[in-house]
Amino acid sequence: MQKAHLHMVRVGEFAWTALEPTEGTYDLDWLERAINLAGQHGIYTVLGTPSVAPPVWMAKKYPGILVTDENGKLYTGSTRNHANWNSELYRRFVRQIDERLAERFGHNPYVIGWQIGNEYSRQSFDADTQAQFHAWLQHRYGSLAKLNAAWTTAYNNQTYSSWDEIPLVDGPGDNSPGLWLDSKRFITDSLRAYQRVQIDAIRKYADPNQKITTNLMGWYDLFDHYQIGQDLDVIAWDNPQVKGSYSPMENGATHDLMRGLKGGNYWVMETTAGPRGGGNASAMLRKGELRAAIWEYVGHGADLVSYWQWRDALNGGEANHGALVDVDGRPDPIYAEYAQLGAEFEKAGPALAGTHAQAEVALLHSYPSRWAINWQKMNPAYDPIQELMSYYTPLRQLGYTVDIVPPNRDLSRYKLVIAPGLNVLTQAEADNLTHYVEGGGHLVLAQRSGMKDEHNSRWSERQPGPLAKLLGAHVEQYMSLNDPVAVSGDWGDASASMFAEQLKVDNPDTQVLMRWLAPNSWLDGEPSAVSRTVEKGSIAYIGAWMDSATTKRAVEWMLKGSAASPDLFPVPEGVEVFHRRGADKNIFIVGNYSTSPTHVKLPRSMQDVLAGKESETLNLPAFGVAVLMAPE
Amino acid sequence: MQKAHLHMVRVGEFAWTALEPTEGTYDLDWLERAINLAGQHGIYTVLGTPSVAPPVWMAKKYPGILVTDENGKLYTGSTRNHANWNSELYRRFVRQIDERLAERFGHNPYVIGWQIGNEYSRQSFDADTQAQFHAWLQHRYGSLAKLNAAWTTAYNNQTYSSWDEIPLVDGPGDNSPGLWLDSKRFITDSLRAYQRVQIDAIRKYADPNQKITTNLMGWYDLFDHYQIGQDLDVIAWDNPQVKGSYSPMENGATHDLMRGLKGGNYWVMETTAGPRGGGNASAMLRKGELRAAIWEYVGHGADLVSYWQWRDALNGGEANHGALVDVDGRPDPIYAEYAQLGAEFEKAGPALAGTHAQAEVALLHSYPSRWAINWQKMNPAYDPIQELMSYYTPLRQLGYTVDIVPPNRDLSRYKLVIAPGLNVLTQAEADNLTHYVEGGGHLVLAQRSGMKDEHNSRWSERQPGPLAKLLGAHVEQYMSLNDPVAVSGDWGDASASMFAEQLKVDNPDTQVLMRWLAPNSWLDGEPSAVSRTVEKGSIAYIGAWMDSATTKRAVEWMLKGSAASPDLFPVPEGVEVFHRRGADKNIFIVGNYSTSPTHVKLPRSMQDVLAGKESETLNLPAFGVAVLMAPE
Amino acid sequence: MQKAHLHMVRVGEFAWTALEPTEGTYDLDWLERAINLAGQHGIYTVLGTPSVAPPVWMAKKYPGILVTDENGKLYTGSTRNHANWNSELYRRFVRQIDERLAERFGHNPYVIGWQIGNEYSRQSFDADTQAQFHAWLQHRYGSLAKLNAAWTTAYNNQTYSSWDEIPLVDGPGDNSPGLWLDSKRFITDSLRAYQRVQIDAIRKYADPNQKITTNLMGWYDLFDHYQIGQDLDVIAWDNPQVKGSYSPMENGATHDLMRGLKGGNYWVMETTAGPRGGGNASAMLRKGELRAAIWEYVGHGADLVSYWQWRDALNGGEANHGALVDVDGRPDPIYAEYAQLGAEFEKAGPALAGTHAQAEVALLHSYPSRWAINWQKMNPAYDPIQELMSYYTPLRQLGYTVDIVPPNRDLSRYKLVIAPGLNVLTQAEADNLTHYVEGGGHLVLAQRSGMKDEHNSRWSERQPGPLAKLLGAHVEQYMSLNDPVAVSGDWGDASASMFAEQLKVDNPDTQVLMRWLAPNSWLDGEPSAVSRTVEKGSIAYIGAWMDSATTKRAVEWMLKGSAASPDLFPVPEGVEVFHRRGADKNIFIVGNYSTSPTHVKLPRSMQDVLAGKESETLNLPAFGVAVLMAPE
Repeated sequence: MQKAHLHMVRVGEFAWTALEPTEGTYDLDWLERAINLAGQHGIYTVLGTPSVAPPVWMAKKYPGILVTDENGKLYTGSTRNHANWNSELYRRFVRQIDERLAERFGHNPYVIGWQIGNEYSRQSFDADTQAQFHAWLQHRYGSLAKLNAAWTTAYNNQTYSSWDEIPLVDGPGDNSPGLWLDSKRFITDSLRAYQRVQIDAIRKYADPNQKITTNLMGWYDLFDHYQIGQDLDVIAWDNPQVKGSYSPMENGATHDLMRGLKGGNYWVMETTAGPRGGGNASAMLRKGELRAAIWEYVGHGADLVSYWQWRDALNGGEANHGALVDVDGRPDPIYAEYAQLGAEFEKAGPALAGTHAQAEVALLHSYPSRWAINWQKMNPAYDPIQELMSYYTPLRQLGYTVDIVPPNRDLSRYKLVIAPGLNVLTQAEADNLTHYVEGGGHLVLAQRSGMKDEHNSRWSERQPGPLAKLLGAHVEQYMSLNDPVAVSGDWGDASASMFAEQLKVDNPDTQVLMRWLAPNSWLDGEPSAVSRTVEKGSIAYIGAWMDSATTKRAVEWMLKGSAASPDLFPVPEGVEVFHRRGADKNIFIVGNYSTSPTHVKLPRSMQDVLAGKESETLNLPAFGVAVLMAPE
Repeated sequence: MQKAHLHMVRVGEFAWTALEPTEGTYDLDWLERAINLAGQHGIYTVLGTPSVAPPVWMAKKYPGILVTDENGKLYTGSTRNHANWNSELYRRFVRQIDERLAERFGHNPYVIGWQIGNEYSRQSFDADTQAQFHAWLQHRYGSLAKLNAAWTTAYNNQTYSSWDEIPLVDGPGDNSPGLWLDSKRFITDSLRAYQRVQIDAIRKYADPNQKITTNLMGWYDLFDHYQIGQDLDVIAWDNPQVKGSYSPMENGATHDLMRGLKGGNYWVMETTAGPRGGGNASAMLRKGELRAAIWEYVGHGADLVSYWQWRDALNGGEANHGALVDVDGRPDPIYAEYAQLGAEFEKAGPALAGTHAQAEVALLHSYPSRWAINWQKMNPAYDPIQELMSYYTPLRQLGYTVDIVPPNRDLSRYKLVIAPGLNVLTQAEADNLTHYVEGGGHLVLAQRSGMKDEHNSRWSERQPGPLAKLLGAHVEQYMSLNDPVAVSGDWGDASASMFAEQLKVDNPDTQVLMRWLAPNSWLDGEPSAVSRTVEKGSIAYIGAWMDSATTKRAVEWMLKGSAASPDLFPVPEGVEVFHRRGADKNIFIVGNYSTSPTHVKLPRSMQDVLAGKESETLNLPAFGVAVLMAPE
Repeated sequence: MQKAHLHMVRVGEFAWTALEPTEGTYDLDWLERAINLAGQHGIYTVLGTPSVAPPVWMAKKYPGILVTDENGKLYTGSTRNHANWNSELYRRFVRQIDERLAERFGHNPYVIGWQIGNEYSRQSFDADTQAQFHAWLQHRYGSLAKLNAAWTTAYNNQTYSSWDEIPLVDGPGDNSPGLWLDSKRFITDSLRAYQRVQIDAIRKYADPNQKITTNLMGWYDLFDHYQIGQDLDVIAWDNPQVKGSYSPMENGATHDLMRGLKGGNYWVMETTAGPRGGGNASAMLRKGELRAAIWEYVGHGADLVSYWQWRDALNGGEANHGALVDVDGRPDPIYAEYAQLGAEFEKAGPALAGTHAQAEVALLHSYPSRWAINWQKMNPAYDPIQELMSYYTPLRQLGYTVDIVPPNRDLSRYKLVIAPGLNVLTQAEADNLTHYVEGGGHLVLAQRSGMKDEHNSRWSERQPGPLAKLLGAHVEQYMSLNDPVAVSGDWGDASASMFAEQLKVDNPDTQVLMRWLAPNSWLDGEPSAVSRTVEKGSIAYIGAWMDSATTKRAVEWMLKGSAASPDLFPVPEGVEVFHRRGADKNIFIVGNYSTSPTHVKLPRSMQDVLAGKESETLNLPAFGVAVLMAPE
């Protein structure tokens, strides 16, 4: 590892049985030897709590610590993510092992952080958890009458007369959208409390400099990541690259999502080292492409990148998985690429220190909204992530660093805020957005926005509900589209697909930007996009999912209106530029994600950190990367 | 509603908890106020019994009232169609609430009818129901020896030596087609008995003028609709339009199926008001198209059309569903279309009164046959409904009103009877058909007919079994077709696909009409269609699923032979005409289902009821409709 | 049957209830009458033990005799393959009925053999079977420490501290490849022990001339057929033909697989008589095609061919299935084809006696390897059977009879051995292959070979593990391919797809045959095929799945190197020739599997057995067949 310029290693998250071979008997010595040995070679440790994988002996003796699935069946036979985080008994076992670990390693100078569990991903639906849910609901609503009203249970004769009649669910069933959303909130709170147990156990002993985190999974949505992220010192996530092709745009948006959880730099705990093994297709990125990809991670704000996995085990489900070192103890071909990255990180580290992405433009994203749309898609092909990407992509192409943040965050720093699919919009969030617009901000709502309140109930105004008056317009009706439909107006002629919202203007100030052209249809001649100026700010609504060229023109219109200025310089097709700012410096990372060499002209002379010289132009081979530094 | 010219409202079918908030405590006052208020505005009520949706308190206290699924698992978490209609306890609860309702509303002048439950759709497989099935079988067969013989259980060592060894099933498994069919009969009888409980409860108190019905679901086939329909005063069904496109042909056949259940006019209890919401695609029909569609409903025999739904609830699974009135209490765009229909119905009502469809041509349809084919398709793409449509479509195109009736009905009124896929043919049905032919009727059997007896056993003669002698031919062998095969003969050259029956003539009177042309195949040169004249009548068999042009020529040949006369006048492509006859009048409804205006020349001058004038021609815009009256 | 020249009938395998109507009461008289009556007409019986289908009364009284599925649910409602072969109670019932049958028929001169059960196909996962698995593991490993080490359970915290923590599984889960493979071994051993119970019960009474067999299912892989085949007197299998098209190549490989189980001639217990009935597509082979197909069976080594089914039952799941005799007791069209075959078998029998296929070329096949690849495909489209076929097909096309044998068999008789996908390679098997090469044999390993040891663990050398040193090269890395990639070298220019292995030469003796051409990829310029001469023998490795033309050239290269000589003479496209050798004679069966007549020139004059004359040429109509005899 030292030879490969690796300075960090992640250990322990699947080692519970080795650490506690029988109940109450601990053996931490081997781990201490390993950590110290690594440390003596300049390799620092992030120590995983083993809570994702209880020992087999524990599951056998106390089956109640395992998850019960939605059908009431004990979930067995797995090796991970099968423990019930709502179980008091399980939390006690976890607390004990975590305290032992923290006691021993909380001041070990080679331990820089803690990873709680691994890829949180399975809620239990056992009877005790259901009872916790009932108590949670009781605390939230106070009375069944309030719950019944909030969920309109009378509509389908689902009126509850006892708390224990209410099932915890994950996802839609033949019951109530209110139940679905509160179930998700309970799942999030359950996980957060479980995470809190571990944070407290570690913090009881650990040096405050040791960062506590966990490895999240990008767009994964079992729980509300904004809640879970609150209690972590730093956000970390796993970013596997196993498809055989790399999309900087798609990947970048996920990095921006993760960066937005808390709004700072973050860690990448896993990125793949070759094919994945197992039953799925396991193509590899091309030679050099993974290095270029990882420089994009850094460009979006990664301050640490760790690889999965160092060396192949001989058996177990990931025995065929790519690794830096193969079964024979000798390097795999990917090793050289990672060693090169290690050396480059050593070289670029000082320049990168203290820098982070800064954006004037934000996309809003919320888990309740994404869940609500996915639960009631109305068009099976409707994907709210793709709706967000339809705005993210042109923003990047036009030279803007983008933040992805939740709708309850302070937005005053942004000149432009776009909200695609902000389906669930609480009154507080609506107030925050109104405040933003009235303070001179420029807000664009897109399809499906402002439909539901905090209970996943329809607002009793039509979309965008509590923002309809500010907009001076509303969604008169909506429908799924079988075939594309034309729209036309200020942004030119376009084709819209998937879903249509027919807008109606209520306020003479509100201007129609685009209209549907749909012969023989309800939509014909009706507005598809409107906007209204609100003092120095503005609010707009786009009711059509337009083709990408037109969406780009729409985004240009937004940017112009908001006076946001681009912070990325123009590069040729296939090349991407990423921007991190420090107190007195700018870092630009430029990557060529095409398979042909290319030439990039810089806007001014910059310090080429890896090459160690000043440059005004870059000659980038396929998958070539440059790290540039320029004064503010 | 009054403003929208609505004169009927359907209420109560999901209101059990509101009507009986706790066990044995009833509150019917709010419902009475609503019914009376509506009535005072000219709006009559069809009152739903709430039996489809037991209160949550009931399901919690008496879980046995819920359905047990085929895997023995209690079916929970749903809001409807989850109660066990075989449960004596549940039937008692249902009887009690129904009697309360009937006692209160059975003579309310504003109540015109009762809807029992809602979209019957889930059989229970609990142990008690299984025991009922065993008693049912014992009653049917008397002895296990007879059952074993009827189902040929010895074939696969399934010989039963005790009644309780026999599982109730729904659909095919690795057991006996005899079991599958008797299970369906038991399901039908169970549902019918449950329906009887409710009819008796209502009739005990209700005025005979109040019609009792339920809302069926078109081609849905959990049970034998001919049996269930027997006990209803009028047939009613739900006809959602949620695909975004309208096929008058497909829709019309479903209306004719429903009309044929009892052979008279019927009600449509639900047709959609916009997109469906939920997870599925929810496209809308075009502007004006739904009005044209509903006029087709009337053309086939609908005497009442009701819309789902009046106003959106704020939460619950159908909160996004289309409605006449939106969450804000203001009309949705579709409102205007329905209001127009209401006004037109007011205007056309007197003309339509006392009229109904009358056909000289019938298609035979039976649930046992459809089930038997679907259980043993032999070609996964084989759809018996599409087989029926392949004859229905040309009959309509050639100007004929068509009845769809079961094979045990008196057929003497028909000049031509076509039986596609009459797979299960009991001796009594065969006798009825023989009687029809010998009485001068013209019968055409198509693929898969006459294969199974009442036990879903093979007849010990080859197809068409008990009609083979009358036909003077039989199916020598059959096979699935991977690719289309040519056939040729009296109806020209054609392509046949899906499935092939190789016919063989046994009687010198029998004529070969078409032959297979299939080099290197068993079929080559063998008959694919034959017919035999039986005094003034005839019987034919078609063993090939031919392309539509050839099937149309075959139908022309049938119509010519039977001397049936068309009762619909010719209209341009895209236009449909529907015919209702009264004692001394003819009503023709003409609809333009294309998106272009068109011109229709009438065969003679008629009264244009909506326009209020005599016409010899019609100028119909896209989705335009005319209601014409002419003397007999 | 006599009239159709049938001389064998298979009876009894679903007749348990008829033989033992109530517990302990037997009635074998009817069966004896049937067997004797058939025998008196020249029809010999293979008697099925009824063990695949316990009586319904038994399953009702002793539910534990039924299979418990992997979810712990009792598997009910089936009519066959639902009994638990690990149940001691069930084995006792089976032993009793088998002994009764053997006692009565073990010396009946008309009984020539016994079929144990029918199409073995369902393992039970009940608690008692799990306990047997634990005892089996304990016997295999001695200690948990050894098992934990062999399966690397520490890797994912799956360390077992008690035998009863280990679940029996069938197929991959989130646990250990070691567990998956040992589960398969246990399933195989369980079935073999159960089969042994039956063999012993029969042998206790039966004449040694009565052959004991069972009907296997071609490529089916629930268990290791090489193990199960050990205890049978003769291999038998079911070869349905229900797709509507016949592939002599695909079919022939399956015959060769079955022949290789024990290495001698075999029986075909079922081949279809027309469409299958049921829910699947049930197309028929063309007229005459089935006869030509069955002559291929004989060509590969079938000494008996039996048809399913003689006559349609009236009910039961196979009532629509094709038969020689239909429901009316009269022949179906297929009858004539089978009668012709019967007459031809009578004529050709003497010539065929004592002959069997003999090959100089072998393909290696092992169940552990096939399982291991299917469990961890790495490309979902990867099919190890198709990998084998990619070598089988050109070998046949180039005129070679091919054996398919396991890697632990004596290979000294073969000049060339190809091992496609020999993923699991034990040390003993590696030694056997090394011995073969060192003895002058020519071995070609293909993709995925030599990766895992007997525990389905990675060898700690890279592929081909224990053969890497002999090869002088190894697989440096592997990856799934999304798109085809070019390879080039001694075998010309080719396209490779699916999966790539990047080879690396370790020994200067080893020659590179082909290289990857993959710009921007890890693979570019790296070896894709290598070989090394080892004294008079050689070993090669092919790491690319090449297009069929190139694979054919590669096979030509192998054949040339090994000096294997073709034993089939050239025939036109669409024609196949099969070769059986006797002590002093050669039998060639030539079939025309095309739909056009063709002309075949023989290499020398031969006796045309069916025509009864000497010939130097054959004129074969579509589906025509000739049986030729020539002296050695």
